[in-house]
Amino acid sequence: MSYFFQKEIKLKPFPRGFHLITGEIVSSIPEIRNIKMGFLQVFIKHTSASLTINENCDPTVRGDFERHSNILFPENARHYHHNYEGPDDMPAHLKSSTFGCHAMIPVTKGKLNLGTWQGIYLGEHRNYDSGRKLVLTLMGESF
Amino acid sequence: MSYFFQKEIKLKPFPRGFHLITGEIVSSIPEIRNIKMGFLQVFIKHTSASLTINENCDPTVRGDFERHSNILFPENARHYHHNYEGPDDMPAHLKSSTFGCHAMIPVTKGKLNLGTWQGIYLGEHRNYDSGRKLVLTLMGESF
Amino acid sequence: MSYFFQKEIKLKPFPRGFHLITGEIVSSIPEIRNIKMGFLQVFIKHTSASLTINENCDPTVRGDFERHSNILFPENARHYHHNYEGPDDMPAHLKSSTFGCHAMIPVTKGKLNLGTWQGIYLGEHRNYDSGRKLVLTLMGESF
Repeated sequence: MSYFFQKEIKLKPFPRGFHLITGEIVSSIPEIRNIKMGFLQVFIKHTSASLTINENCDPTVRGDFERHSNILFPENARHYHHNYEGPDDMPAHLKSSTFGCHAMIPVTKGKLNLGTWQGIYLGEHRNYDSGRKLVLTLMGESF
Repeated sequence: MSYFFQKEIKLKPFPRGFHLITGEIVSSIPEIRNIKMGFLQVFIKHTSASLTINENCDPTVRGDFERHSNILFPENARHYHHNYEGPDDMPAHLKSSTFGCHAMIPVTKGKLNLGTWQGIYLGEHRNYDSGRKLVLTLMGESF
Repeated sequence: MSYFFQKEIKLKPFPRGFHLITGEIVSSIPEIRNIKMGFLQVFIKHTSASLTINENCDPTVRGDFERHSNILFPENARHYHHNYEGPDDMPAHLKSSTFGCHAMIPVTKGKLNLGTWQGIYLGEHRNYDSGRKLVLTLMGESF
């Protein structure tokens, strides 16, 4: 039998940078236990934040993501025309499309089938934000 | 009940740069109204163009995407070996894999569940193209 | 009727760089022929490797991917704090999130619906690895 479930959640505000949110996601969607095999999609409804999957252990990895992406997508580049929302805005849009706005994770036997070292990162690319909205969608075969 | 629908469309040719195509996509797939919850995937069948989701309002954002990606992925870099299809070709392949070849958008109550400021961008990374082919796939629970 | 199928496979070890693995994927999942329309997701359970879709013909494209990504994500950058796993480690994490950890490919009439020039790339971003684990998930409408 096919099983579908969808909900929206709002994260608490996070400071600019990359943050591990696997725990928040998993605890928000206990319905995942109904899925024998399928997917969880986490989709962020914003264009100045991102979702990606990376190393879930050492926080210096998240720090290096922030430091390195600030070099690739600097503030106040002369070629930016879109600058009236502040110097952090255009880099935020570019980071969002580079890292992506969704994570699509296989679900197996009622759990996220992530590798040992994988976690879900929120990339918060604005200096201040009031909390990002996510759409969580489960789709799969039920037990 | 599960609902599946799939079709291929061909976009009109776009000039090099980033273009908002949400309207073209939505009008191409009225079947979306049959989905209570699920997904629309938009997949581009090319390796020198991309699909990404970003800001749907100010066209300077799309201009800055083009300007900034031309810096990160310049033409005529000395280390490119793949150059016989023209100086715009290798940067186009790199941009395609950086921004991605698909958008996977949650569908809720018969509509794309995008954030207020989100739109679907076509990244046309070649100087000239005759029109890109997309595969649109709907999957979800029907009403 | 909905059809679901999922399996894990382990690739042979690949050297650092980008490698075409479409053949390995297709031959690993003959069940794809059961799907009239739907998706195959290929998900990599690692944070220092990536999956992306790009040009399936000229191997110099894959070489240019390696050369160019080594410029954008260099080893031994001064701002990296995460360096105790070797100089190739932090660039590998950054490449993994830039190119992504999954490919989501439409399936049509029992086959991957890729464009003529599209293939699935494994991005192996570490100098040495013992073989990457992939989760393959099929979801769609059966014949």
